Amino acid sequence: MADYTFFTNPMSRGQIARWALHEVGADYATVIVAYDQPRPPALLAANAMGKLPTLIHHTAGGDYPLAEGAAICAYLAQTEGDGALAPTAQERAAYYRWLFFAAGPVEQAITARSMGFEPTERQQMSAGFGSYDRVVDCLAGHFAASDFVCGARFTMADVYVGSQVLWGLAFGTLPDHPAFAAYAARLVERPAYAAAKAIDDSLIRESATT
Amino acid sequence: MADYTFFTNPMSRGQIARWALHEVGADYATVIVAYDQPRPPALLAANAMGKLPTLIHHTAGGDYPLAEGAAICAYLAQTEGDGALAPTAQERAAYYRWLFFAAGPVEQAITARSMGFEPTERQQMSAGFGSYDRVVDCLAGHFAASDFVCGARFTMADVYVGSQVLWGLAFGTLPDHPAFAAYAARLVERPAYAAAKAIDDSLIRESATT
Repeated sequence: MADYTFFTNPMSRGQIARWALHEVGADYATVIVAYDQPRPPALLAANAMGKLPTLIHHTAGGDYPLAEGAAICAYLAQTEGDGALAPTAQERAAYYRWLFFAAGPVEQAITARSMGFEPTERQQMSAGFGSYDRVVDCLAGHFAASDFVCGARFTMADVYVGSQVLWGLAFGTLPDHPAFAAYAARLVERPAYAAAKAIDDSLIRESATT
Repeated sequence: MADYTFFTNPMSRGQIARWALHEVGADYATVIVAYDQPRPPALLAANAMGKLPTLIHHTAGGDYPLAEGAAICAYLAQTEGDGALAPTAQERAAYYRWLFFAAGPVEQAITARSMGFEPTERQQMSAGFGSYDRVVDCLAGHFAASDFVCGARFTMADVYVGSQVLWGLAFGTLPDHPAFAAYAARLVERPAYAAAKAIDDSLIRESATT
């Protein structure tokens, strides 16, 4: 049995988890979940919402279910690959700050805009994300000054934050800011990114022809 | 100089960070930021969005700015108090899963509902939070089966996830589910919660009388 069972769909945020799995060289078995079929019972047992990706870590001490792309990244970074992609004490503040910024305000701002919901000025005071423009400017400002989330070194935070930027540029949900484009160019050089993407792209092509 | 500079407003999510600071016994100096005044330059230098809470960790190696309540919790847990409130290897999956679930889908579902935005059935397929009801049921299901985020032991994840539940019950943005009420009752027994809350409540009273 593989160390991890990975429930995904190649068109989902599962791409983030696959990239993370490849970055740490994890031993995983994939279960493809089609959107037009009922969720498998093993997936629902691990994650009542049935969301993709869901990952189960099988260990001698028991099975640990994981959900949320950013959580999967943080978990794998500390658990696998001798922790090489987890942050050092000096990188830790930036690592968590931008992981949670991307999983919270960035995700929320992009979702709200893509669904046609824009908070009023008054609502921007209390909404955690403020406004789309402020969130985007803040994120772009970081990558204008820093090659990666934690400075000069690639860490697992770049898999999650970087996936948000890559998807945002690909689907037009983030503006074509030079700092985003330069960051994206650094990310796609990762061999683990290319390997994971090739698998998902191949699965997408297969499902399109069947 | 204190180890941490803590920019907050007692009416803000800064309450989460203060609770976390007290859980690890951190040495911090508070800077109260009034909503009707310009943001202090030191705050804007640390966090271009000027959001509260913002925390700066002053170390021999340099200053590390932190933002996002959940990130502040994760950082303090690993950095202070000998890591006693950080997760063990066995707790790690639940710790990250529910931290990111609360910072992402829960926050997003509550914000969307409180601002009068409800995704359509089709939008629920792609929105990370699905729907308010599914998110709430998933969170309540966890606390119906588990005393704390990671099982029997209180960890720093409970400061963040617990704050979401306590606020949700106090402001009616989460339903009055028995599992939430029981979890809330366990949380308010923490001495650090009471100490931090007393400070913010006192600051709120002071500002109301001036």
